[in-house]
Order: sequence, then C-alpha cells, then structure tokens
Amino acid sequence: RINGSRLWTSLMDLAQIGATDKGGVKRLALTDLDRQGRDLVVEWAREAGLKITVDKIGNVFMRREGTNPSLPPIVTGSHIDTQPTGGKFDGNYGVLAGLEVVRTLNDLHIKTEAPIEVAFWTNEEGSRFVPVMMGSGVFCGAFSLETAYAARDVDGKSVGEELARIGYQGEQTPGEHPIGAYFETHIEQGPVLEDEDKVIGVVPAVMGLSWYDCTVEGMEAHAGPTPMHLRRDALQVATAIMQETVAIANRYPPYGRGTVGMVQVFPNSRNVIPGRVKFSIDLRNVNDELLNTMHEEMTAFIQRTASETGLKIQLERVSYYPPCPFHPDCVGAVRKAAATLGYSTMDVVSGAGHDAIYVARLAPAGMIFVPCKDGISHNEIEDARPDHLEAGCNVLLHAMLERAGV
Amino acid sequence: RINGSRLWTSLMDLAQIGATDKGGVKRLALTDLDRQGRDLVVEWAREAGLKITVDKIGNVFMRREGTNPSLPPIVTGSHIDTQPTGGKFDGNYGVLAGLEVVRTLNDLHIKTEAPIEVAFWTNEEGSRFVPVMMGSGVFCGAFSLETAYAARDVDGKSVGEELARIGYQGEQTPGEHPIGAYFETHIEQGPVLEDEDKVIGVVPAVMGLSWYDCTVEGMEAHAGPTPMHLRRDALQVATAIMQETVAIANRYPPYGRGTVGMVQVFPNSRNVIPGRVKFSIDLRNVNDELLNTMHEEMTAFIQRTASETGLKIQLERVSYYPPCPFHPDCVGAVRKAAATLGYSTMDVVSGAGHDAIYVARLAPAGMIFVPCKDGISHNEIEDARPDHLEAGCNVLLHAMLERAGV
Ligand SMILES: NC(=O)NCCC(=O)O
Ligand SMILES: NC(=O)NCCC(=O)O
Repeated sequence: RINGSRLWTSLMDLAQIGATDKGGVKRLALTDLDRQGRDLVVEWAREAGLKITVDKIGNVFMRREGTNPSLPPIVTGSHIDTQPTGGKFDGNYGVLAGLEVVRTLNDLHIKTEAPIEVAFWTNEEGSRFVPVMMGSGVFCGAFSLETAYAARDVDGKSVGEELARIGYQGEQTPGEHPIGAYFETHIEQGPVLEDEDKVIGVVPAVMGLSWYDCTVEGMEAHAGPTPMHLRRDALQVATAIMQETVAIANRYPPYGRGTVGMVQVFPNSRNVIPGRVKFSIDLRNVNDELLNTMHEEMTAFIQRTASETGLKIQLERVSYYPPCPFHPDCVGAVRKAAATLGYSTMDVVSGAGHDAIYVARLAPAGMIFVPCKDGISHNEIEDARPDHLEAGCNVLLHAMLERAGV
Repeated sequence: RINGSRLWTSLMDLAQIGATDKGGVKRLALTDLDRQGRDLVVEWAREAGLKITVDKIGNVFMRREGTNPSLPPIVTGSHIDTQPTGGKFDGNYGVLAGLEVVRTLNDLHIKTEAPIEVAFWTNEEGSRFVPVMMGSGVFCGAFSLETAYAARDVDGKSVGEELARIGYQGEQTPGEHPIGAYFETHIEQGPVLEDEDKVIGVVPAVMGLSWYDCTVEGMEAHAGPTPMHLRRDALQVATAIMQETVAIANRYPPYGRGTVGMVQVFPNSRNVIPGRVKFSIDLRNVNDELLNTMHEEMTAFIQRTASETGLKIQLERVSYYPPCPFHPDCVGAVRKAAATLGYSTMDVVSGAGHDAIYVARLAPAGMIFVPCKDGISHNEIEDARPDHLEAGCNVLLHAMLERAGV
C-alpha cells in the first residue's frame, strides 16, 4: 500500500507554484511557473533514483529500471499544467500518484520485471495553446511536431519559442519511446462517483470531442443613434448560436455536451454595437455517430443564421478526436485491483479528454477515477479527499504491478 | 456665410493632436494631448479677439462682446476630448464651428446685441472618467464638483489632479456663467440624414438613457464531465438576457434602443462552463414613459430568469438621464435658418447624449446635425463632407444671429 500522507504533502507542495488567492492554481503551459513546477517534479524524481528523458515536445519520462531489460516500461502519468483558474488535483494527481508508486516500490525494495515510468505530458489543458493534449497528441502522431511548435498564445508567443525558453525542448523524437501499457489516475471532474457514493471509477471509454472557433462579423456603430432595423449587431447573432450550442447537446442525452466557454467582443465598449464577436464551441458525445450529427446540426444552424441575418459567420473546427474505448486488459486490471483492495467501484464514461486517449493509440491503456468534491474541476475550489486519492493510488500500484510483473 | 475651407483647415489642424495611424484621433480627457488641443483652440480664440474664462471643472468660455452689456451671451460649443478610437469630427466640429462663426462676424464687422460665446465642455466622452458629459453635468448641477473631482481613471488618477496638472482648473464656479441660449452643432453619429439624403438635421429632442451593469453568477465546471442537467451555466443565462435586451427595444419602435456593448466571461476558457458573466446594457427611448416601461420589462425579465434558473443575477443602474426635448424657440431658429439658407432638412431625434441636454436645464437650447459617412462615429474611420460641415456652420451662424440680435 502507498503512503497517502506523503502523496498529499507532495500535492500540496506542488500546488504552491502558481497558487491563487482562492486556493487554486494558475500554472499555464510553458510559462515560468510551469518551468518551476516541472523542475520540482524532476528534482523529486531524481531523489527517488529515476532517470529523466525529455522529448522534443517537452514530454518528460522518469524511469525506474526493471529486472528484464528487454521489456518495454509500464507507464503512468498525466500533466502538471493547469487552467487559468485551475485546481490542485487535475493532472497533478496523476503525476504525483505515479511518483508515489515509485517511492512505495523503493521503500519496499520491490523490483519489477518491466521498468516503471512516470510521465508528464506537455500542455494537456489547451488553455494557452491549442490543440489540447498537445504533448501526448504529438507523441502518438495525432498531429505533427511542426503544428504544435507553431501554435501561438494570445500574445503571439509560440510553443516552439516557449519550450526552448523554459529549457524543456528535449532531444528524443516524440513517439520513439516504447510503452508496454499505460495507466492514468485522475479526479473524475464530474459529479457521478460522489452522487453514487463510490470510491473508484473504472473508465471504459472517453467521449469524443469537437472544438470550434466561431467568428461573427457585423458593423460597429453608436448604440444611441443607430435604429434597431439598421444594425448589424454581431453579438445578437453570436448569442443565438450560443443558445443553440446548448440546445443541440440537450437533444442527445445522456452523453451529449455543448458548451461556450470563451467569448471576446470587439470593441467591447458600453455604447458601441459590437462589430465582431469571437467565441469557442465545445461539443462532445461518447457515440461518434451522434457527435457527427451534433456537428452537422451546428453547421446547418450557422449557415441558416448567416443567410437569414446577412452577417458573415465563420466556423472553424480547431480540435477533434473520436470517442476512445480503453483496452480490455487495462480496464480489467483496474477493476481487479480495486476488487482486491476492497474499494467500491462503478464504471464512469469520461467526459473530459485525457492524455490516455492518445497514448491508447500506441499501447494498451486504462484510467482510474476518484471522486472530486461536488464534481467540480477547472475551478480554483476543486477539491478531493485524501482517502480517495490514496485509494486511487493503491489501485494504480496494484494494476501496474500486475502488468509489470514482480 | 461662413468660410468652409477655413473651418475644414482648423478641423484638420486640431485633428493632428492625437492623430492615429488609421486617420482617427485619440485625445482622452485631461491628458497632455487634451491640454495641447485646448491650448491650440484658446490660442485661435485669442487671435480672434475673444476673452477666455475657465471654470472649476475646466469648461472654457471664449467671449465676443455684444453692444448691449445687460444681455446674457448666446453660446455655442461642444467638446474636444475624444474616444480612445475616435474620429476628427465628434465634438471638435461643434467647437470649431463656433470659432468659425466668430471669425466670420469679425470678417464682416458684424456687431451683435448680445455677446457671442464659444464653449468647450470637459470630458464629454466619459471614456477615461465616468460620468459622461462631466463638464456640462457639473455646470447644470446634475452632479457635484466633488463627485466629478473624485472620478478616477483605470490608473487611479483623479479628475481633480489631472485638471490641475494640465492647468485647466479655473476660478469660476460652474453654473455661475449666464447663458441666454445655447446651440450645438454635431455630426449625427447615425445613418438617418444620409439615408434620407438631407443636409441639415433639426433636433427636436435627445433620447433618455439608462445604463446598467448586469452580472450573472453560476458555477464554473468542466465542459466534458458535467451533464447538461446539472450545470449552472452563467453564459447561457446571460445570453438569454442579451437577446431580451434587443427584443425589448424592438417592442418600442421607432425610438427604442437596446444594446449590449461590453461582455466579460469568467474564467473565459474553452472547456470551462462560465461561472460568471458581466455585461453592460444600454436602453434608450425618446419617451420617458416608454423608457421606464423598458426598464421595468428588463427588471421583470431578470427576476423571472433568476427564479427560473436559480442563478444569482444582479442588475445595477449606473447612469440615467431622461429624454430632453429642446426649446421650441431654439428648434425654430434652427429650422428657420436652414430654410432661409435653402438647405434640405428633416427632424432627427438624437440617439446620443450631448452637452446640450445638460445646458438645456439652465437655458433654451437646440442642436444642428449634419450627416456623417455611413452613420459611423466612435470609430477612427468617422468621416463627414466639407460641404455638409459648412452648411451646418452657416445654419449655426444664422440661428445665433437671430437670437443675439444685430
Ligand atoms: N481532463 C481535462 O481537463 N482535459 C482537457 C480536455 C478536455 O476539455 O476534456
Ligand atoms: N455623443 C456621444 O457619443 N455621447 C456619449 C454618450 C452616449 O452614448 O450617448
């Protein structure tokens, strides 16, 4: 069994870097704070005797050798970048649970056949740079290193520049790092486990996702003298699309999701009719056919709205991945470990994307969920119980040992 | 008749101060550029033989004596501060048209019975400091000198400090400056005159205005794992209110106006359900009863929405002034002058607020509109035709002479 209080202490220590007033963390990908967070985790890994490899997109692999040098490593991990108003557990838990597994193996002098590795993947959140899950996406070939390097934040800084600046542009070619099996522990980021009073979520699959940027162009004009019928109000058209985004998701329960999270209004002045509005659309479903239907309904609504209003509307898909069923062997290993340890479990479809879905393209993969308070994540008040985090880490230990061999 | 090319040259000269790359002007109230603009206008006034008075809020009166010392002056004016992305004509035209009237009277050696004065009012735009129309507002007692002095810009600098710094904190108590009648020429800032192909807008009234800040509080949560029915999506509720803002205005044609110009979404991240949305609402009507009905419909809609959704919605009124009908004598003088001069005219209700609405509380007042290109204002591409500006100035000359007596 792992050491729950050591795991908790590490989580709290890492959460100091980029800590916010409201108890959350703001540690955006490839910022100076991300560098500090990476440095701290790498320092801990070195203290635990692990060997560090960094690849060209900044993914970090921290290795504990096994007894059989011909076996590929059993890998666990997640990410340490956060949302702008993120919490202490999202991603960080998965990385530090992996580190705790290693520390426990060290304490107990357990030697595994296959090597054990703990990884953290670059820019999982996609808040500062799209695409989201960038590091694991490049690793599995979902998009190219060049595409990732060229991504820019709102200030125009690129991933390539920022990776070099913080010193995490490594030598290894992404993907040229063998993986025998991959496990990722994560807080659920939803309310289901808590609602059903279960400790461990066995994750059979992750929902597919389509992300869009939508821009509506109207005509800036003075809010007073411009009669209603002569306006080309970009915001009024944009808000109709925002309402439809939610309506589309509501037509495909229980796994349809529709969210507008980001809005920019130009020139954003009280007495000026908005001339341009740019916003994001996030559509999800666990069924790829239904996700495609949702995509088509969105496209059709926008075409209809453009032709009815005469305003120019641009809809660009900026990210897409299909639903991802996990490997039966890994899902089974998680289910078995939880049963052995006597934890209550249930199956939970993941609504959030995780690095595991990309790694699953190259190796058998599975995930372990633990409850988070009120299902809240991507929020500074994100919280989780130490005993739940400990339970998830114990399940990880047992699942990894089953795959690695002792 | 006035000298149109001299008027145009002065407009272009003044527009050099704070000129932007895109052909506009950025000369925010009480900045160094505002000081330079004020100094230039005062220098021109001195060259035209005018006597300068400055009051405590920095309003400047430039006086040409009349033959009858017992008569109060006939005043014209406007403002020379601009929007951050403002044009060359908004406000500046009204001040320089007044100067051109004086220059013309000088050229023709015309003596008026009542004195003639040209005024410019401090901080009409309200972009750097609220409330808007500050100088004329203090002048007529709409709010106190202390309130105005205490207003601060985003950098924390106050109106009192900045007025003193640029050397325009005068001696005279605002309002203790007699006005016999007031005329203000201005670009229309709307599309009506151009649409109807008329040269002169006779302004019977200015619409009343209510400005609000509205805040919707929901619950930030992850866009993937949070089922639709468990969300408290602040943006979905906010967009319903934004749609209703326009719907309310459309129920009260032709003078109902409803605009949402400014929106801030928190945390504004693509895969986070917005936890808080703050936005502005601008409602206008020329009929105060209808404006009040619009206010009540907005309030009722928000109460209903709050109770239906369970989200907290705050609506705060941050500005209000009632509709302002202008004095029949002044409106008549404008109409008569335009007819005498043979210009095509129509009545245009002003949708925008102007210093004239505050001055109208102390003296008979009226306004003269001229067309602006595509009705565009509060924009660097704001434009107006020299012949239209000349026509408006000729109407001003005749209307002022009628009221001043020759
Ligand atoms: N787990 C997580 O927050 N991933 C980011 C991508 C997503 O929005 O699902
Ligand atoms: N004329 C003008 O732009 N005034 C500012 C206040 C308003 O929005 O009407």
